[in-house]
This record gives sequence, structure tokens and C-alpha cells, in this order.
Amino acid sequence: MLVVGELINASRKAIAAAIEAQDEKEIKQVASEQVKAGADYVDVNAGIFVGKEADYLQWLVKIVQEEVDTPCCIDSPDPVAIEKALAVHKGTAMINSISLEKDRYEALLPLISGTDLKIVALCMSDEGMPETCEQRVKIADKLINSLVQKNIPIDNIYVDPLVQPVSTNSVFGAEFLDAIEKIMKGFPGVHTICGLSNISYGLPLRKLLNQTFAVMAIARGLDALIINPLDQRMMANIIAAETLAGKDNYCVNYLKAYREKKFEF
Amino acid sequence: MLVVGELINASRKAIAAAIEAQDEKEIKQVASEQVKAGADYVDVNAGIFVGKEADYLQWLVKIVQEEVDTPCCIDSPDPVAIEKALAVHKGTAMINSISLEKDRYEALLPLISGTDLKIVALCMSDEGMPETCEQRVKIADKLINSLVQKNIPIDNIYVDPLVQPVSTNSVFGAEFLDAIEKIMKGFPGVHTICGLSNISYGLPLRKLLNQTFAVMAIARGLDALIINPLDQRMMANIIAAETLAGKDNYCVNYLKAYREKKFEF
Repeated sequence: MLVVGELINASRKAIAAAIEAQDEKEIKQVASEQVKAGADYVDVNAGIFVGKEADYLQWLVKIVQEEVDTPCCIDSPDPVAIEKALAVHKGTAMINSISLEKDRYEALLPLISGTDLKIVALCMSDEGMPETCEQRVKIADKLINSLVQKNIPIDNIYVDPLVQPVSTNSVFGAEFLDAIEKIMKGFPGVHTICGLSNISYGLPLRKLLNQTFAVMAIARGLDALIINPLDQRMMANIIAAETLAGKDNYCVNYLKAYREKKFEF
Repeated sequence: MLVVGELINASRKAIAAAIEAQDEKEIKQVASEQVKAGADYVDVNAGIFVGKEADYLQWLVKIVQEEVDTPCCIDSPDPVAIEKALAVHKGTAMINSISLEKDRYEALLPLISGTDLKIVALCMSDEGMPETCEQRVKIADKLINSLVQKNIPIDNIYVDPLVQPVSTNSVFGAEFLDAIEKIMKGFPGVHTICGLSNISYGLPLRKLLNQTFAVMAIARGLDALIINPLDQRMMANIIAAETLAGKDNYCVNYLKAYREKKFEF
């Protein structure tokens, strides 16, 4: 399981304030906590700062990587901001994200084709958000094939089928989970990734739903998550689910996490 | 989700003692607690009492149904014990269990063919415990087809693919989960059921593994569980997983459970 720590996102008030104040200490602390908790990538997002996004994103990458030896997940649809962030990034970054929307696709493609970057590919097209499994698989098919043709190894592609709220339509969770399985089985070597919080939108006890949905997605083949790694039960669920899904030889990860007291909370 | 409460089992010391002492109050209390917590069936098992199993099983059914208006899951491989228990049972019982083992199959078939009983069909044959998905599906195929030919409606068949410990072989969880999905997709109308505790045998924090595995099995189509319904997190996980799997129109069950404070523990 590849874990992207989602906390350094300017849509969160404390992070927006830290960015504006250029508060290195705050950003470094959030980066460090996430990596200690198990994040493989640190997401950086400065999307709310129109006109300043590129500068702030570059600053975030620099500050985060002064603190941790971990690659960033550069979270922006803007090729200028991504390019600026990549210029100071050490190691192999993840880009979050390209999609099948024509403008976004064409703007980002030159930046990523032929590179080693990990690419999040959103199942979004100019026809809007997908609702059914079939719509997601159709978009994934086009995205995967076109990215591979542009010299992006399939192993570097992380398809995000886009979680939609189960409160809006009872089958939205099931359609998403079916899509995960179809994409993982239909395109060997590709990865699937998602954020979880949309699934529980409009319902009480969102953490319980998000934690449970993560386990269900892993049971269907999901192998990367954009989450808050400081949520200890979420991390425990992920470790347990991976062990139960046959992805933990001799249960070594599970036993290691147990010895490290990661299940005590 | 159909929930079978597993606690009235003579392999548990307190229950064995209550049976020997013919302590009606203790049995009634365990039955009542399980039903209040959400059990649809109350499992009754007196398997450790060789020579007395039939009498004790009949007594358990009588005592349980004096307390609760809930059918029993009669848990025995012995046709004599099952027949005696059925003689006093009110409503439609579940029988746990038939299998493809020749002696067991032939002994139980006359008792169940042409009835309305719900039947747990274990994926066990004279070749021993299955390990792979394919072995499970092969046995399930034979069992389902032969039971349907003997006038047992497919809707009354609950296939138990048999959980084996992930500590013995890292892929045992994955093989089981694959079998759930193949059986549910391959035999429309059939149900799948299982106990969970074997999955975590030999590992620490078994509850976390059992609770997580239940969610994974639901994500693959499982629609019945033999569990301890007093495990509040297990029940919360099941309710959340069913909502997320598209089996809860307008999230009414989830919201009802929330209002009834079933997620507070």
C-alpha cells in the first residue's frame, strides 16, 4: 500500500495560514508527523492562492524536503505550478493529477511524457463526474492507453476512479468498488488510488465510513490511498487489510506494526 | 446481512457449565443479549457432550425460544440431534451444517430435502479442507447443484467456504475472498456465510483482524455471518460496510443505527 499524506493542503485553515505567514516550522512539523506515521508521499497543495499558487507550491516542496527524505505528491492542475515545484523537488515526485478533460490533459501531457514521475490519473472527462462503474472504466481505458503511448510506464500510473457520496445515491460506493476491481484486473500493472472523504459526505460519523470504505477498496484491489496518516485506526485498518488480502508474506508487516504499538490507540 | 449469534456454544466454558447445570437463566440471558444486539438467528451447539448432545440440543432450543422469538441455528453434524432439536423448534430453523463429506451428506440429506430449512453448506469434502479458491468453488458447485436437485431452494442455501488462518499461509485470506465473489456471482440467489475467528489464529489482536476481514468479505459479496453480536465494533463495521456496498437504500439502516447509538462504544 502506497500512502499519500493529505494534510498539507491549503484548503485546511491552519495550513493556509502557515503558507501565508511562510511558517516553515508548522509545515515541517506536519510533514514530519505524517512521514513518521507511515506516509510514503507528502501531498502539497496551495490551490486556494490564485496568482500565487506556483510560488507557494515551490516553497512547500522546498520546506517539506528540508525536513523529510520523502517525495512529494504535487497537487495541482496547473502545469506552471507543477513545473516550478518540480524544479526544486528531490527524488521522483507524484503528480496529482491529470484527467481526460481536454484542456487539463493537453496542458499536463508535455510535462510528464517520457518522465519517471508517478501520475495520478483522475477518471474525469469533459462529460463530468462519472457515476457508474462502466463510465469510470471507459475513462480509465482511454487515459491508461494514451499515457502509455506517451511513454509513461503503466507501473507509474495511479488511476483515481473518483469516490462519490453514498448519501447522494446508495449505489455510488458499490459502483466505485466495482470500478477498482475492473481496472486492476483489466490493466495488469496499473495502480489505483483515491481519497476517501467524499464517500461519507452528508452522513454522521464520517471517520467510521471512511475507515470502513478503505478496507473494502483494498479488498477489491486498491493499492494506494490519499489519507490522513495520523488517523491511527485508518492506518491499523490498512495494515490489517493488506495482511488479510495476501499482501504481507508471513504477516511480517502486521507483526512489526504490532510490536511498534501501532494498534494501540 | 443475516447475523447468526455464535455465543451459545458448549465449546465455551460458561455455556458448557450452564448446560450441565441446566441453568435456564444463563442460557436465556445470552440468547436475549444476542437478539437485542442484532442476531437474526441464535446458534445452539452442544457438541462436546458425547452421548447427551441430542438431549442437550433439544433443551437449548426450548429454553432459547422461551426467551426470544428468534429462530435457532442448530449447530450439529448429527442427524439424530438435529431431528430432536427440530421437534421442539418454532419457526424456520437454520441447520449448521451439511458438507460434501459422504457420510455427513448422506446422513443429513433425508432430514432437509424438501423442507423450508435454511442450510449451511460447508465447502468440505472427503479430500479435506480446501485451500484454494478453485477447490472451494468446485465443492460449492457440487453441493449447490445436488441440494437444489433435492428440492432445497437456492435461496435457502448458505455456502460456507471455510476460513483458514492467514498465519499458516499468507494467501489463505485472499483465496477465501476470491471464493466468496466467485460463488456469489456464479450461483445467483445463493448466499454465503462464515465464521471469522480462524482467519486470525496464531496472530495478536485477533479482534482487529476478524473485524477487518468481515468488512472485506462483505465487499466481495458475503451476506451472512456467524459472529459474536455483542462485539459492538464488529456490528458497526457490518452496518457501515453494508451501507457502503449499496445494500442500504437512502442509508436508512446506517442513520437508524446512528440514532440508536450503536456506534457509541
